[in-house]
Amino acid sequence: MTTQQLHEQIIKKKSFLCIGLDVDLAKVPQHLLRTEDPIFEFNKAIIDATHDLAVAYKPNTAFYEAYGLKGWQSLEKTIKYLNETYPDVFTIADAKRGDIGNTSAMYAKAFLEDLNFDSVTVAPYMGKDSVEPFLAVKNKFTILLALTSNEGAFDFQTKQSGGLQLYKEVLETSKTWQNSENLMYVVGATKAEYFKEIRQIVPDSFLLVPGVGAQGGSLQEVCQYGMNSNVGLLINSSRGIIYASAGEDFAQKAREEAFKVQQEMAALL
Amino acid sequence: MTTQQLHEQIIKKKSFLCIGLDVDLAKVPQHLLRTEDPIFEFNKAIIDATHDLAVAYKPNTAFYEAYGLKGWQSLEKTIKYLNETYPDVFTIADAKRGDIGNTSAMYAKAFLEDLNFDSVTVAPYMGKDSVEPFLAVKNKFTILLALTSNEGAFDFQTKQSGGLQLYKEVLETSKTWQNSENLMYVVGATKAEYFKEIRQIVPDSFLLVPGVGAQGGSLQEVCQYGMNSNVGLLINSSRGIIYASAGEDFAQKAREEAFKVQQEMAALL
Repeated sequence: MTTQQLHEQIIKKKSFLCIGLDVDLAKVPQHLLRTEDPIFEFNKAIIDATHDLAVAYKPNTAFYEAYGLKGWQSLEKTIKYLNETYPDVFTIADAKRGDIGNTSAMYAKAFLEDLNFDSVTVAPYMGKDSVEPFLAVKNKFTILLALTSNEGAFDFQTKQSGGLQLYKEVLETSKTWQNSENLMYVVGATKAEYFKEIRQIVPDSFLLVPGVGAQGGSLQEVCQYGMNSNVGLLINSSRGIIYASAGEDFAQKAREEAFKVQQEMAALL
Repeated sequence: MTTQQLHEQIIKKKSFLCIGLDVDLAKVPQHLLRTEDPIFEFNKAIIDATHDLAVAYKPNTAFYEAYGLKGWQSLEKTIKYLNETYPDVFTIADAKRGDIGNTSAMYAKAFLEDLNFDSVTVAPYMGKDSVEPFLAVKNKFTILLALTSNEGAFDFQTKQSGGLQLYKEVLETSKTWQNSENLMYVVGATKAEYFKEIRQIVPDSFLLVPGVGAQGGSLQEVCQYGMNSNVGLLINSSRGIIYASAGEDFAQKAREEAFKVQQEMAALL
């Protein structure tokens, strides 16, 4: 997928919502636990109920690895279902990987080629040669952690590094890497005041924004400072949408929550 | 396992060698490709041939995820085999994970509880609340990336951050986290001159050291500056040992390479 196709989808759906598929079996409605693959059945129902309101889906790999082989199978089935049934949506493997060059190439193969996600999240700590193998995959995107939505973001990311705060140093430096046009960035909504400066460094890139809702970020503020002429934002919501109800009506309730967010987004576009 | 037990094993085997099980099917001896699970068969043969010379084994998860479900199965079988057959060896899931708190807890469950590795490598970029869920698991270790062995280590890790270079800031800050006694650190052998200063910050911690051999680091220099009264070092070697031969004698040749390293280590102890 190209960023132009992603933009077209945003305009068509009047939405820049990304739904986080972070499935915890302890929170999945009881009746699904009797099916052969509760995680996949849960995802399928959520996706079917929201695909016209969301432009992206983002399974976080931790929630699948926590169930071992069975979890990995649910992840495979989920991305396969997305690619076959809704090929227009943008898919994100929220894996936060990163290793020395030949090892990162293995992760790139796993997520961008074999599983065929459109993108994967990557941690910047190990620098250029840990990220470039992801960037080398054609027509795919690498979403680099810049300023995350958690409290620990203030431990290192906002510290001065080489004259700039570390997350700005990450943004600036990453622009010099090969195939940097395939970069997007994670910027937490809980730090909306930072978007203005971030847009001075990466005016054109898409930003994946966690932290609206449950974690306290404001959609309106993020848009005010973070939106560019191409929209340039994917706002993630996980728990607020997928766990709107723990009953048999969970998919319908998830749709209702997604619809509320989409309506807010339509008004901001 | 406790660090005391690890130390006892080091003294007994006169070795602080960790063997990296980074299995690439393109490099596995031909005759194994006809077996049902070539990756596991390869690992099993390497482990059987070297278990008295190495104190730790470290599968890097990227090499398993690259083969999807089948790869994950090989990883499960490998760690199960290690735990059942050689319960005295120290096992490391080289996963380089890290995410917001509740998500890191899922990774901790996956690697330290379900798969039952003794330790897991974790990236520090997201700070305290991304690491503490790993540290919370009793009798297990979190091996935090400090100064890695690759070229990209100079992109951010050695930049000034809050008055210190970032990797030192990571070392210092991590000491204040809850259950920090469960921390070990990754420090690349390619930067041997840094070990002196690192030992001033973390005199007692075990350091996992990649980069000896293939990547150019010197074992002698690492020991000179990095060894403490508890030895405090796990030196990793992957390709140099496991791919010593591509023939049917691969396990024997791996043993010969491991023996050479062990002999060097015995002399340094």
